[in-house]
Amino acid sequence: MSEQKLEIAAGNGLINRRHLLGLGLTGMATAVANSALAADAGLTLKIPDWSRQPGPGASGYGSRSSFSEHIQRASGAPNPLYPGGGASRSPLHQLQGTITPNSLHFERHHSGIPNIDPSQHKLVINGLVRQPLLFNYEDLLKYPMVSKIYFLECSGNSGSLLAANAANGSAQSLHGLVSCAEWTGIPLSTLLDEAGVEPSAQWINAVGADAASMGRSIPLNRAMDDVLLALYQNGEPVRPEQGYPMRLFVPGCEGNISVKWLTQIKLTEGPSQFRDETSKYTDTQLDRSSLQFTYPMGIKSVITSPSGQMALNRQGLYQLTGIAWSGRGSIRRVEVSADGGRSWADAMIESHQSEKALARFRIPWQWSGGNAILQSRATDNLGNVQPTRASLLAERGNISTYHFHGIQSWAVNTAGEVTNVYA
Amino acid sequence: MSEQKLEIAAGNGLINRRHLLGLGLTGMATAVANSALAADAGLTLKIPDWSRQPGPGASGYGSRSSFSEHIQRASGAPNPLYPGGGASRSPLHQLQGTITPNSLHFERHHSGIPNIDPSQHKLVINGLVRQPLLFNYEDLLKYPMVSKIYFLECSGNSGSLLAANAANGSAQSLHGLVSCAEWTGIPLSTLLDEAGVEPSAQWINAVGADAASMGRSIPLNRAMDDVLLALYQNGEPVRPEQGYPMRLFVPGCEGNISVKWLTQIKLTEGPSQFRDETSKYTDTQLDRSSLQFTYPMGIKSVITSPSGQMALNRQGLYQLTGIAWSGRGSIRRVEVSADGGRSWADAMIESHQSEKALARFRIPWQWSGGNAILQSRATDNLGNVQPTRASLLAERGNISTYHFHGIQSWAVNTAGEVTNVYA
Repeated sequence: MSEQKLEIAAGNGLINRRHLLGLGLTGMATAVANSALAADAGLTLKIPDWSRQPGPGASGYGSRSSFSEHIQRASGAPNPLYPGGGASRSPLHQLQGTITPNSLHFERHHSGIPNIDPSQHKLVINGLVRQPLLFNYEDLLKYPMVSKIYFLECSGNSGSLLAANAANGSAQSLHGLVSCAEWTGIPLSTLLDEAGVEPSAQWINAVGADAASMGRSIPLNRAMDDVLLALYQNGEPVRPEQGYPMRLFVPGCEGNISVKWLTQIKLTEGPSQFRDETSKYTDTQLDRSSLQFTYPMGIKSVITSPSGQMALNRQGLYQLTGIAWSGRGSIRRVEVSADGGRSWADAMIESHQSEKALARFRIPWQWSGGNAILQSRATDNLGNVQPTRASLLAERGNISTYHFHGIQSWAVNTAGEVTNVYA
Repeated sequence: MSEQKLEIAAGNGLINRRHLLGLGLTGMATAVANSALAADAGLTLKIPDWSRQPGPGASGYGSRSSFSEHIQRASGAPNPLYPGGGASRSPLHQLQGTITPNSLHFERHHSGIPNIDPSQHKLVINGLVRQPLLFNYEDLLKYPMVSKIYFLECSGNSGSLLAANAANGSAQSLHGLVSCAEWTGIPLSTLLDEAGVEPSAQWINAVGADAASMGRSIPLNRAMDDVLLALYQNGEPVRPEQGYPMRLFVPGCEGNISVKWLTQIKLTEGPSQFRDETSKYTDTQLDRSSLQFTYPMGIKSVITSPSGQMALNRQGLYQLTGIAWSGRGSIRRVEVSADGGRSWADAMIESHQSEKALARFRIPWQWSGGNAILQSRATDNLGNVQPTRASLLAERGNISTYHFHGIQSWAVNTAGEVTNVYA
């Protein structure tokens, strides 16, 4: 298909998404003679060594190719004043689809990763219940479970976009505190029902077995909704850095309330005001008051390719792609702009779509070698629309670094360099 | 909830699936005093070592808990006459949900796993095309892709159920050649369109870069449908044992036609009759004729817990769970029997559901300590119903070991031992 036939969908080179699949990307492949076979000797293609002799056979637990080992989560240098604390970010610019492999799911720890023996781990449900209960891991495996694909996002994700000057960052460094997996677990309501919730109970207070005793308070009505005691992540037991042997999982909400290494749920009349929900995870407003217990993550999207610190090495067609999610519902629409928000085109959503899960969007874009500002704007099934950075700042100020979900702007200059900008 | 209130749904203890979530599993948890906290000293629960000091911090590419390392794929001893050949099976009885983690996806190799440098790997499309083309890995990463959750099943999966005597097997050893992942790749039609398919072309012939030069022929109309050149598996690059850096992926069809380490697609008028599609993967009939190119996998399900080689250690309620899939559509219904097929109850489907993907089903079952035969029977959205083993044998005989999709029977004896039986 020649480029002249492409139907323009928005300014600065955005192509109608219907062209996505049938698009001939002229010039990407090399024309060869029909006799060219990788298995033909004597031609320009010689038989590679790996085709000449058998390789190793099957294994018990596989690992990735050594040629993929550059794909890594990124974390800052360890802080000796905060042992085990910190975060690592998913390499969003190197991933595809919507599922994050378990080894690359983002991390956030308050006191490092405890190495828990599941046979010695206990979960207590107590407080305002008819009968306080103690659960063992092996017994919990026998309970009814559900499996759902959900994103998880740290409340601090993208917080650096509130700084006065745009950081020289990548999709990973700016937005990599979001991941997505199929979580399998026991509906928390099943366990609370078994203990018997007293009428006076209004909150649950969840505490982890890590050295930080990380604790968070959650309203009972939220806890009785779609919250899970998660035991499996993408089919296998939850990874140590995700809370092995068990974590709370609160779909759509800031990651820290999905308390990892969960060891206690205490039912109370009010919230506990744990250290980690007062010193952190409060949203300070323009008038210096603080909002607490602001759980759901806002409607959001980010273009992962092209994205910050990449470089376009030729003019022509690109497959622009990214991820979108909403803490309150499912993604209904993602629009993309190549001219800093003056005009928008609908992207194609080309993945599994469900409530509180990542969606993958794509749209073809023809870069003519000029300046461009790439943006994406998500809308969920409830009609929530991702705001601009400017409107979010006007509404909230920039004192709190939590819950930033404004539109990301990637500038492309005439050299093809992609950078984070405010636009 | 007392057991007396449970609504019976079918014979021998199957409970209405609506009880699945609110079910109080009396006696599983231990009643304790309200002061029992994992973090309280001086009580019966002492503070575990892992809560006393910070653990290690974030990492680049995570690994699982040492306490999960018993969860392994299983393979037979290496055969010196078939170097690198063979298979490994997913531990279905130890997994939950529907996504198989990449390290536990089943394997089937004809000559082991080539260690391919993607920068040196080539994909050729030639034969009956207007312009033969050569593709590099880096260029292919720029093509439009789609992401879909699909199962993959070896045509030989469950073949041992055709033997005269029921093997003493597990869900893993009998049925573990099926897995499920989110696959992201380029629609093959995009690449074939770019090369330009000649009107005389009716088949594609796909060849891998392994030492076996594993090759399969696929009708062109199938290849132009939902077939992918898969580059990513659950978000990250396809694993070496799954075809790194690229494989064909033919949704719903026997795994071997999803040729791994793909290096050539040649368009022809007829099939190539590759060694591996004549010596294997033909279905020999009762009259000794052979069916070739029998790609789609039949409607199927298997109960993964309780399952073969497990033992029930107490009378009472169990969460019966398993997986179901269809090579032609999506799972609409799964029924379960505890009396060898005399009566059936509808199970709950509690997972992501989509075309040609695994679905997870569950139903509560009350074991009273007597004999039972547990079976599951799946129905897809096209009305295909999983057949009994007996009807499959009557129709096809047992000369071919491929494409077995009959109903599995797990016998439970009065000692609680679970075994594979024919019933």
